[in-house]
Amino acid sequence: MNIEVQDTAAAARTLRASTRSGRTLRTPCFAPVATGGALKGVLTTDLPDHAFDLLLSNTYHLLLRPGLDVIESLGGLHRILDWDGAILTDSGGFQVFSLSGTRTIDNEGVSFRNHIDGGLLRMTPESVIDAQERFGSDIAMVLDVCPALPATKAELTHAVDTSLAWARRSAAARTREDMDVFGIVQGGFDTELRQRSALATVELGFDGYAIGGLSVGETAAEMYLGIEATVPFLPEDRLRYLMGVGRPDNIVEAVSRGVDLFDCVLPTRNARNGKLLTRAGFLNIKRAEYRLDDQPVDAECTCPACTRYSRGLLRHLYKSRELNYYHLATLHNLWYMADLMRDIRAAISTGGFDDLRAEVCRRYAETEPV
Amino acid sequence: MNIEVQDTAAAARTLRASTRSGRTLRTPCFAPVATGGALKGVLTTDLPDHAFDLLLSNTYHLLLRPGLDVIESLGGLHRILDWDGAILTDSGGFQVFSLSGTRTIDNEGVSFRNHIDGGLLRMTPESVIDAQERFGSDIAMVLDVCPALPATKAELTHAVDTSLAWARRSAAARTREDMDVFGIVQGGFDTELRQRSALATVELGFDGYAIGGLSVGETAAEMYLGIEATVPFLPEDRLRYLMGVGRPDNIVEAVSRGVDLFDCVLPTRNARNGKLLTRAGFLNIKRAEYRLDDQPVDAECTCPACTRYSRGLLRHLYKSRELNYYHLATLHNLWYMADLMRDIRAAISTGGFDDLRAEVCRRYAETEPV
Repeated sequence: MNIEVQDTAAAARTLRASTRSGRTLRTPCFAPVATGGALKGVLTTDLPDHAFDLLLSNTYHLLLRPGLDVIESLGGLHRILDWDGAILTDSGGFQVFSLSGTRTIDNEGVSFRNHIDGGLLRMTPESVIDAQERFGSDIAMVLDVCPALPATKAELTHAVDTSLAWARRSAAARTREDMDVFGIVQGGFDTELRQRSALATVELGFDGYAIGGLSVGETAAEMYLGIEATVPFLPEDRLRYLMGVGRPDNIVEAVSRGVDLFDCVLPTRNARNGKLLTRAGFLNIKRAEYRLDDQPVDAECTCPACTRYSRGLLRHLYKSRELNYYHLATLHNLWYMADLMRDIRAAISTGGFDDLRAEVCRRYAETEPV
Repeated sequence: MNIEVQDTAAAARTLRASTRSGRTLRTPCFAPVATGGALKGVLTTDLPDHAFDLLLSNTYHLLLRPGLDVIESLGGLHRILDWDGAILTDSGGFQVFSLSGTRTIDNEGVSFRNHIDGGLLRMTPESVIDAQERFGSDIAMVLDVCPALPATKAELTHAVDTSLAWARRSAAARTREDMDVFGIVQGGFDTELRQRSALATVELGFDGYAIGGLSVGETAAEMYLGIEATVPFLPEDRLRYLMGVGRPDNIVEAVSRGVDLFDCVLPTRNARNGKLLTRAGFLNIKRAEYRLDDQPVDAECTCPACTRYSRGLLRHLYKSRELNYYHLATLHNLWYMADLMRDIRAAISTGGFDDLRAEVCRRYAETEPV
């Protein structure tokens, strides 16, 4: 992956990255999550033009359904997602540790019962790289061990050591020149472990680095500590990816600490639950006060939900569980995220990033504390 | 409503109708159903341009949710549906008789417990016309009594007589010059009752006439008998509307008997259940044979599902219950209906309607008997 620095504002930076496959990412970049081969409720052709450079899809879910043979028969993951931009696939590590009731980690890999039909599956560093190469992913993640927090020092150390051994094997398993592979730094909030994990992972020479093991239930302050304990040990000329983050205030804070790349189900999942993202913070469309409200959700937003539908109408569609509600609300939240990331990039380039960061944090803390 | 005959092919006819509100219907016309103020899974802005002239929405559902005050506060039914074409609202009669467990018909109207929270509601011919005027409907239906079939002669006679009395009161209740009101003919398959109901309803002078009380579980042959027992007694210069029909083969058969207008949940509901409408008849997307099938659902269809997605991918999205499946499948079935109605109109005008009718009946009978 080739990186071109556009501008910086203290630690915050805006880059133009080119994947080995020839696709472009403008950072800071947010990747919507298309879990099982689809954005939930929105076709890629419904997204605003050039708003997103990257989608994330989940290796674990894709292997279960539709399965590798279907993906290959139907032309690969870009065809499945109907998406010509870049695709990042995670390694499945996080899902194995969060969704599987029973799992066994050995030195070779992890065996687990899947959450759909309880069937036994096995993932190894090599099988996960192979799957992502066969998907046709632009950016692949290595299989890592992602412990639940809080964890003991011994648990964190074991996760770091196993993740490093697997990262080495992942690097060796690569066969495609046109797929970027990112390493993942573990270590919880332990600054010493974070540093060791970061330096040793960077030593292996990946195309980018994820700050893993965060956004698993810790406080925002703890998450920021984990970022601060990692970023200084990552190279300037590689993307830094904070996995599973999401909230607008968390994003601007992480950007201010040098993070380039994000993914999260928050905008799409929150939309389905009635929680809309606006320039004034969270708006809960369920509330009775919106029943007769003819105003748009966010007057500055240009999405179809805001330009053609009112709060009262969206509330009605939500209460009636109309499919169109999920579509419109998801579109809106994604539109908001696209605007936010565009505004962040512009503010880093032209000044005013600190003001934008303060405004976003204030609005989101007012409407719901982190 | 003003009617201009374009062409005829035996009893089949293609008309251009102008509503009192100034909107145009090209017939034979199919109205998709937007039950509670929304097409399920498809925004009106997603529909192919100029494919549909008319949407149907349900007075019963709209009165329950979002309610008349919300509809009025949010700018009326055209704003709710985000639709500038014509809107027909039914009277709620059918839902009162099909959805309510307990109901009491008296001479004045009908009292019933609604199917959502069991609350007591009352509808009278006058209240139903008033509601539709306040919705801003282009075409309103009178409140009628729609008995379940089979019914005794006494039940059918009572339904015809009560419906006639209510139709007279509905006509007297009109206050808006810019809303068309259609009468509804009842009488089951009893030719004598159908004739009496038709002649007496026409005597009241409505803007159009519905053939009511059909598509309630009878065979196709019985439905065609009901149509044949009604159409000869309806005026040439008024639209003839077969309520609740739906299947492509039923539509071409009804058109051949002089019907102009249709509505049905079939294309949208079938889509959600995995049953797709194609030029080769029904296609059940659930079937295992489509698992690796990279072909489109219908190679002649130009909808987004057929031009951008494969059978295998739609099957995956269906099996995963992805929201996008419902959207794509619904779009496809509506696209098919739009193409079918366009082809019917063209065939009546330029010849070949009998061939089209035979082909549609053969394909749909082969894939599923009526």
